[in-house]
Amino acid sequence: MTTTSPTAQSAQNSSVPPRLSELVDRHREVIDQAVAAIGSREFYSRYPESPSPRVYGEDAARAGEAAYSAHLGKRYEALADQPAPAGWVGSEVSPYGPELGITYPHYGEGDLDELLAAVRAAVPAWRDAGAQARAAMCVEIIDRINARSFEMAHSVMHTTGQAFVMAFQAAGPHAQDRALEAVAYALVEQRRVPEQVVWSKPGKGEPLTMTKRFHIVPRGIGLVIGCNTFPTWNSYPGLFASLATGNGVVVKPHPRAVLPLAITVEIAREVLRENGFDPNLVVLAAEEDGEGLAKPLALRPEIGIIDYTGGPTFGTWLERNAHQAVVYTEKAGLNTVVVDSTDNLKGLTSNLAFSFSLYSGQMCTAPQNVYVPRGGVDTDQGHLSFDEFAEALATAVQKLTGDDAKAVGILGAAVNRDIVSRADGAGSLGRAVLPSRSVTHPDFPDATVRTPALVAVDASDEAYLSECFGPVAFLIATDSTAESLKRFVETVREHGAMTASVYSSDESVLDAAEQAAMDAGVALSMNLTGGVFVNQSAAFSDFHGTGANPAANATLTDGHYVSGRFRVVQSRRHA
Amino acid sequence: MTTTSPTAQSAQNSSVPPRLSELVDRHREVIDQAVAAIGSREFYSRYPESPSPRVYGEDAARAGEAAYSAHLGKRYEALADQPAPAGWVGSEVSPYGPELGITYPHYGEGDLDELLAAVRAAVPAWRDAGAQARAAMCVEIIDRINARSFEMAHSVMHTTGQAFVMAFQAAGPHAQDRALEAVAYALVEQRRVPEQVVWSKPGKGEPLTMTKRFHIVPRGIGLVIGCNTFPTWNSYPGLFASLATGNGVVVKPHPRAVLPLAITVEIAREVLRENGFDPNLVVLAAEEDGEGLAKPLALRPEIGIIDYTGGPTFGTWLERNAHQAVVYTEKAGLNTVVVDSTDNLKGLTSNLAFSFSLYSGQMCTAPQNVYVPRGGVDTDQGHLSFDEFAEALATAVQKLTGDDAKAVGILGAAVNRDIVSRADGAGSLGRAVLPSRSVTHPDFPDATVRTPALVAVDASDEAYLSECFGPVAFLIATDSTAESLKRFVETVREHGAMTASVYSSDESVLDAAEQAAMDAGVALSMNLTGGVFVNQSAAFSDFHGTGANPAANATLTDGHYVSGRFRVVQSRRHA
Repeated sequence: MTTTSPTAQSAQNSSVPPRLSELVDRHREVIDQAVAAIGSREFYSRYPESPSPRVYGEDAARAGEAAYSAHLGKRYEALADQPAPAGWVGSEVSPYGPELGITYPHYGEGDLDELLAAVRAAVPAWRDAGAQARAAMCVEIIDRINARSFEMAHSVMHTTGQAFVMAFQAAGPHAQDRALEAVAYALVEQRRVPEQVVWSKPGKGEPLTMTKRFHIVPRGIGLVIGCNTFPTWNSYPGLFASLATGNGVVVKPHPRAVLPLAITVEIAREVLRENGFDPNLVVLAAEEDGEGLAKPLALRPEIGIIDYTGGPTFGTWLERNAHQAVVYTEKAGLNTVVVDSTDNLKGLTSNLAFSFSLYSGQMCTAPQNVYVPRGGVDTDQGHLSFDEFAEALATAVQKLTGDDAKAVGILGAAVNRDIVSRADGAGSLGRAVLPSRSVTHPDFPDATVRTPALVAVDASDEAYLSECFGPVAFLIATDSTAESLKRFVETVREHGAMTASVYSSDESVLDAAEQAAMDAGVALSMNLTGGVFVNQSAAFSDFHGTGANPAANATLTDGHYVSGRFRVVQSRRHA
Repeated sequence: MTTTSPTAQSAQNSSVPPRLSELVDRHREVIDQAVAAIGSREFYSRYPESPSPRVYGEDAARAGEAAYSAHLGKRYEALADQPAPAGWVGSEVSPYGPELGITYPHYGEGDLDELLAAVRAAVPAWRDAGAQARAAMCVEIIDRINARSFEMAHSVMHTTGQAFVMAFQAAGPHAQDRALEAVAYALVEQRRVPEQVVWSKPGKGEPLTMTKRFHIVPRGIGLVIGCNTFPTWNSYPGLFASLATGNGVVVKPHPRAVLPLAITVEIAREVLRENGFDPNLVVLAAEEDGEGLAKPLALRPEIGIIDYTGGPTFGTWLERNAHQAVVYTEKAGLNTVVVDSTDNLKGLTSNLAFSFSLYSGQMCTAPQNVYVPRGGVDTDQGHLSFDEFAEALATAVQKLTGDDAKAVGILGAAVNRDIVSRADGAGSLGRAVLPSRSVTHPDFPDATVRTPALVAVDASDEAYLSECFGPVAFLIATDSTAESLKRFVETVREHGAMTASVYSSDESVLDAAEQAAMDAGVALSMNLTGGVFVNQSAAFSDFHGTGANPAANATLTDGHYVSGRFRVVQSRRHA
């Protein structure tokens, strides 16, 4: 190797203004920590998940609720400085009852030329700021989102139906950590290419010497298509990965979960403006419910990146039609549990009961299909027949959700009528082990809340072969654990899954399950009987989705999720 | 950070047999060097490009030619141990005249079940060998390919029409370096995920502690679709990137350039067999000329990765139809030169003349469109009018290619009749500045050889707006260098380009060209007047293609080119 040292991409901030330079210095340590964490995948978190006043301040909860309430019934004026909207739009209704009555800037299909031109115009300065400055700007945005976590929690609660504590954690600190994780990946990816190098090829006479420069070039405007149930957690990785790699972003929220992303976009624009960037780098594109703005947006030539979470029909359409863009999708699947045996029946049943109940099964990671040998299950409480095991699970669900006041803190509310229909109609799908129960919310009498239904079916049935999004789980009788694993692999390969879980006190079964998970291409949790649930994935450590089965074509977050968002354009000349 | 040290993915060779373990040790140093080189992008090469006897041995040239000749007129028996073929196929004819008369195992569309099942069966052991062992195996394969570089040179010469020295260099050491580069990227990508980690989340009581394992899982069988002109250089990055990331590979050569890839596959299978792996991990799928086997192969569910070099029609078809696979394509484009001014007219004209002439412009990197201000060009020999500049360029081409015996060493032979038609018909596309000349090859009278044609057109014409593959270059008159740059950006954005080049003695023009190259998304060479040509890209330093314009959707080679070839499947359990 020669001694010529290549210049790191991260150092290309020579023209950074003093204020931005201060920001870069301020956030350097956290960025270094986040970069270390994605390398080791050990525990790391920047944003405390506890809504405790000791963490967020004595007044934070009250102020956050007040800030939320102040949005209600008004135009979202903080976004009035977006490119001139054609009008204002909004029809959010809380799953807990009240109408939000907030309106947001609206752009129809005919207004996209102007909107996208405004985003495009903001890109060159952002591109030229360099990777390190962009990372610092993103951290600043996320920090400020964190400071508004209580306001965000109420906003998410009243658009998704999540219970308050979950809305705080999942849509707040957990989503913020996922955002920071994406920023760290983006920086690492961009740093891998030196900014400049002297290339010297030895030859007969003088060496052939060239100076080469490598420019990070953004791929094209990112389009983030939000979902109704996790508007921030599922949108932040794509939003921040695209931003951190130099792209502008159009955020197209689900028409029923706009507010959390409006707050997010407001903060991003505020930080951009303060630091001398054009705030139109990030815009919100709200729409009428049913308007279908995502389709024309997705096909625009200006859009180079699409991040989508939602149903498989539109996800597959995006993958097959938005040829001009790189498309990252998270769709649907059959999350699976294989029960073989356990030395902790109580832990197993209470853990699964919680996973079924949490946010009424309205998580893309909630388990749906539970394979159980029809001959029953060996446990620390003796051998249980299939029916006895089913009964034990039903009892655990009843115990967890028996008290309405406590139950709503876990179940949240149904995000739409389809969820209720599925819960109420679950009995028709097989033999009802436990019917769904209607729960009355003590504070919100208009909320529709349902407990999980458990349905027993045979492996030869078909009801469990499609996603039944909501509080419905199938107990599927198989000939043996070997058949359970075989069906697990087959169904996940065909229909996809975000999560899988196995219970066995036999190491050889766990090994076989791990092999099966590799064949199926889905992450596996083993013997969860305590405070970790299959629904949960920890930022900086657990990969969410694998890209190896039809449920998602990417992972949150790895290098591949980020590296397609920019390209390298080099130049070379004789030195 | 805790002190728990994650286990590196590269160390997961605990079950590696002694012989393979020795191979891993033997190639560790070169792998480390290659990994360092892709990080710095400084000069690095493992495989000497000089065919000198001092480098490759006194007998190497003779033995290589003999080895090539021994293939002629026979079945390629070294591949007879592939899965039972339906028959044998082959119709290669040298662009220099002779029929090769070699046949290869043949599988029709109806035989793919068996062929792909055989590849699939070989994958688990390869997957489980681990990333470091796979990298070492790949280096061993490439080293043995290198040892057969003379045989390869003759094989490539007589399938592509490349002149011998170019066939030696481009299809030998240069392709081998590109292969090693892909192996290094693959290893780096896989190493980024630890094999195992202990995750410990602090809480109120005991920390929540889990052991997590991260498995590298191959994406699916790789399909490498070779091209006629660069069967090894363009195939090796995909072939070795897929292999090194744990996948099996089906190599589908161009029907007129099979032999170079047959030799490659033979060597890969030999190294696999010697080290206890199933050789069916890598198979050759030759076909009749015109059979169209690539299409059914590309749609097979077993195929998870496709690497393609060739025409844009089939490349676009692959991108839009092979939904089950990740598709990497290199298609066609309008490689562009912008001439503004020069302080070295002689260097400019001789450099460009060589770029036009090398392999008769049959390189995906050969310049085609040369923008020149209609008011002329300032040079170190005074101001030249457009016509005077065109004349200077024509003179340089004539000087370089005037002597038939010397010219064929640069021009090679036309790979097919279309090339000849384009050269001969170039005059109809504009005003002939220099007509193509037919050259007689002193050793191969049946070879068709043409010198480059230069055609003058106006920027408002359309002839130069599609690829004219072969020895034809357009001199395009523009109002100014500003217009040249504008047209450069527009045409490359729409039609793509693999290379671009600018000549100017004005730094502000060079800066503007660099910005234009970023906007167009194409690599730029500046003021090449010596021994570096725009057609050439150096392994480990220059990125070939950007993925940022329609000519290619990927880069040879960067992390993104490799990271989509595998996925990570994790498992977790309480520690």
